[in-house]
Amino acid sequence: MQIAIVLFDRFTALDAVGPYETLGRLPDAETVFVAEHTGPVRNESGNLALTADRTLAEVPHPDIVVVPGGPGQTPQMDNPVLLDWLRAADATSTWTTSVCTGSLLLAAAGLLGGRRATSHWLALDHLERFGAEPTGERVVFDGKYVTAAGVSSGIDMGLALLGRIAGDEHAQAVQLLTEYDPQPPYDAGSPQKAPAHLVAEFRAKSRFIME
Amino acid sequence: MQIAIVLFDRFTALDAVGPYETLGRLPDAETVFVAEHTGPVRNESGNLALTADRTLAEVPHPDIVVVPGGPGQTPQMDNPVLLDWLRAADATSTWTTSVCTGSLLLAAAGLLGGRRATSHWLALDHLERFGAEPTGERVVFDGKYVTAAGVSSGIDMGLALLGRIAGDEHAQAVQLLTEYDPQPPYDAGSPQKAPAHLVAEFRAKSRFIME
Repeated sequence: MQIAIVLFDRFTALDAVGPYETLGRLPDAETVFVAEHTGPVRNESGNLALTADRTLAEVPHPDIVVVPGGPGQTPQMDNPVLLDWLRAADATSTWTTSVCTGSLLLAAAGLLGGRRATSHWLALDHLERFGAEPTGERVVFDGKYVTAAGVSSGIDMGLALLGRIAGDEHAQAVQLLTEYDPQPPYDAGSPQKAPAHLVAEFRAKSRFIME
Repeated sequence: MQIAIVLFDRFTALDAVGPYETLGRLPDAETVFVAEHTGPVRNESGNLALTADRTLAEVPHPDIVVVPGGPGQTPQMDNPVLLDWLRAADATSTWTTSVCTGSLLLAAAGLLGGRRATSHWLALDHLERFGAEPTGERVVFDGKYVTAAGVSSGIDMGLALLGRIAGDEHAQAVQLLTEYDPQPPYDAGSPQKAPAHLVAEFRAKSRFIME
């Protein structure tokens, strides 16, 4: 089984590494980081680079597609190379997945029409433009499409999908090995739980950026 | 403020990226990935590479040192280049931190003598060899030393340390932006919670590898 994790300029690192470190521990699977060009791909801060070992063209038929998000997702919405690859890869994939605003790329490729899906809480409404049905859940399964909410949610998605494919016990073993027993020092990880003024500030900034 | 995240061959990616994505969002901080040599550094699976942008020698006085773990930690325990750098960097650092078996490297450098510290649950006992006091807590502060348990715990550490430095509200904003509202599909993230036979299997394998 082959897992392709897509990279693009100004992606968010944890979006990619969360599923990598969980789903990527699928037995007998090959995980490959892919991008339009091989070589280092910089995240939105520019101070982190993950290497794309293969081009998109070199990995046409992965069994599992993982698309992270990040500020760099916006220009990719008009990139025919990526969108064509997503459509072609999806035609033969077993699972097509995303983290954060990666779901907007799946949606822009026309893959989420009529499907329940999620995204970063700041981007959730944008899914509707493409005919998807946004839901505030952290991980959403709809057929072979699995979408996760913002950034860190890819860890939960990776474990959930690992459980579906390899069984609960294997997923539990990976949770134990990665010591995923979260104890956040605050309870501010969603717009429902965070201080209201922080939510409002981010919504205001986001409108300025995205519209 | 400068944050140096140390890379070495066969590190574990999430150990580094968890603190990166949280603590790295400290206002006005520069985060730099450092290693003995610049260029791509491969993790334990070989299919992920993060770029070290600067050599250890080029970053002698970071304000915050972050040392990840991973299977590649073992050979580093005898690497004078890394251990000397850790001692020198620690002499002027404001915070010296680790994730997973990174704490064994801090301990081997002689930095954790008499200090309470944690590590991956499979490596916890090894801290005692170096005069540290192991504790099963997920994130341990002892003076300027902050150690985190296995792999994913670096996210909790990053947020906790961010709160100490930049204030609770900034840390909550980062938690909200990274949507860190964990909902693991299983409750098997620690040896106390996971199925006992999985814990026993890992302990048996670990003894074989580490002793």
